[in-house]
Amino acid sequence: MWIYLNDRFVDAANAVISVFDHGLLYGDGVYETIRSYQHKIFMRDQHLARLHRSAAAIGLHVPVPAADWPRLLNEAMHRNGVGNDRTDAYIRITISRGVGDIGLDPALCPTPTVIVMTKPLSPPPPHHYQNGVDLIVANTRRNYPGALDPQIKSTSFLNNILAKREAIAARAFDSLLLNWESHIAECTVSNLFFVTNGRLCTPSLACGILDGITRRIILSLAQEEGIQVEEGAYGLDQLVQADECFLTNTTMEVMPVTSLNRRLLGTGKPGPLTHRLHQIFVANRPRFLQS
Amino acid sequence: MWIYLNDRFVDAANAVISVFDHGLLYGDGVYETIRSYQHKIFMRDQHLARLHRSAAAIGLHVPVPAADWPRLLNEAMHRNGVGNDRTDAYIRITISRGVGDIGLDPALCPTPTVIVMTKPLSPPPPHHYQNGVDLIVANTRRNYPGALDPQIKSTSFLNNILAKREAIAARAFDSLLLNWESHIAECTVSNLFFVTNGRLCTPSLACGILDGITRRIILSLAQEEGIQVEEGAYGLDQLVQADECFLTNTTMEVMPVTSLNRRLLGTGKPGPLTHRLHQIFVANRPRFLQS
Repeated sequence: MWIYLNDRFVDAANAVISVFDHGLLYGDGVYETIRSYQHKIFMRDQHLARLHRSAAAIGLHVPVPAADWPRLLNEAMHRNGVGNDRTDAYIRITISRGVGDIGLDPALCPTPTVIVMTKPLSPPPPHHYQNGVDLIVANTRRNYPGALDPQIKSTSFLNNILAKREAIAARAFDSLLLNWESHIAECTVSNLFFVTNGRLCTPSLACGILDGITRRIILSLAQEEGIQVEEGAYGLDQLVQADECFLTNTTMEVMPVTSLNRRLLGTGKPGPLTHRLHQIFVANRPRFLQS
Repeated sequence: MWIYLNDRFVDAANAVISVFDHGLLYGDGVYETIRSYQHKIFMRDQHLARLHRSAAAIGLHVPVPAADWPRLLNEAMHRNGVGNDRTDAYIRITISRGVGDIGLDPALCPTPTVIVMTKPLSPPPPHHYQNGVDLIVANTRRNYPGALDPQIKSTSFLNNILAKREAIAARAFDSLLLNWESHIAECTVSNLFFVTNGRLCTPSLACGILDGITRRIILSLAQEEGIQVEEGAYGLDQLVQADECFLTNTTMEVMPVTSLNRRLLGTGKPGPLTHRLHQIFVANRPRFLQS
């Protein structure tokens, strides 16, 4: 497996960084996870724009010129035999503060570290789409935006790891995190939607969530279809009474949720609007691919 | 410079970890910073106990047997010529989740990574103690304990990095972080005390702060001296009207604070109780050293 590290491709065994990298010492870095459909990358420029927004929010310079990314990502896929007719690619870009003496001052690190990993995409198994997945409500709350804004995709990701650990312990698919006000926020790596009386609802960005790229597409496609859409602050009581529920992210696209804390949501089966929105998403997907 | 990495000492150039270490990818790790006075380590066992508490809180196994730490830390100091009659040592222990495939599940990483760094301690310059230091109140709030408890010393440290960046931009010594309720919490790497009418006040642990080892000693020594001590939830208005203010941590011991947001605190000079508590701390220090 080839990994792009700083300025060249190295094999995995040589893809090493100093223990003085502030990404390791302080979680001082940002990242994006991206996917391809065959050789075309889904919302590539939007993912790269968000990477730059995350970096700017923590005062981190992205040392790869914007114009170089398409060629770099294509080579990263090509070298590992992914992003082609046979295999969709999973791509993770990580930019850390780089190597420097111990201390919080970012100026200790003159050069950011750049890492691009690619591997075959592992889509969720079909039975997840057929039956829906189960969530628990984590005791871990989502990061308080005034402390660390969830819109910064940072490598200080322990908040989500703790919520994921709760899901694993409960043998659930994932955890739903509430925010500091007990409003619904998001899951560990996905945004959440629910449907009540034909109205599509999702937590607003003000609830302290990632501005998910698939979330935004679903909101936009739903509006194009004349579906009533609402972003707001919702309590668990509203979710429990919903007719349907689903998750969105780059890898899963639209994933039905059919139980919460071991109680069925709606009919306990993937809902019709969930199914319809996934179909609309798939039909429109070619619009969102870049090469 | 020698660094202990996993199971052996390596020189700094060879102290490298895989880019797949979840410490780098997800800030999934814990750490302690410790100091020596000559060859004796300050509150060694308490620091190691806190390291184990932090690790336990995130379900991370510390792979070094408890009985091996004293010898290991002594060798780490000795190899770098610190922790002796001439040079006090600064020690940082980092335990990360270790190397594993991309994904949030800690089970992807069978073996935690252990890193022990030692170097000469850089104490603050004398003029900081003589004049006191200046703080600003950061816009960045301290982590919400329900999301990521500040009592876990984790490598997901970006919250503090952001506050430190604000201090650097303002050319201040450090930032004071408020919590989600606008109560005083702590600075980026130290606890805060203030004195009002002879009463020593400090934010309680419930405010979402680190249970600082020097903080605890100062509280205990003050009580032994018959000084009235109070832990509580305080607003900035109370700090602004205080007679004295100081910071505590392992490296600084007791550091006077003489201005906040460019306005003088108290007389604008280090306070008498601050000075007295530092003297008492120094006099009692031998009780807290271990070798």
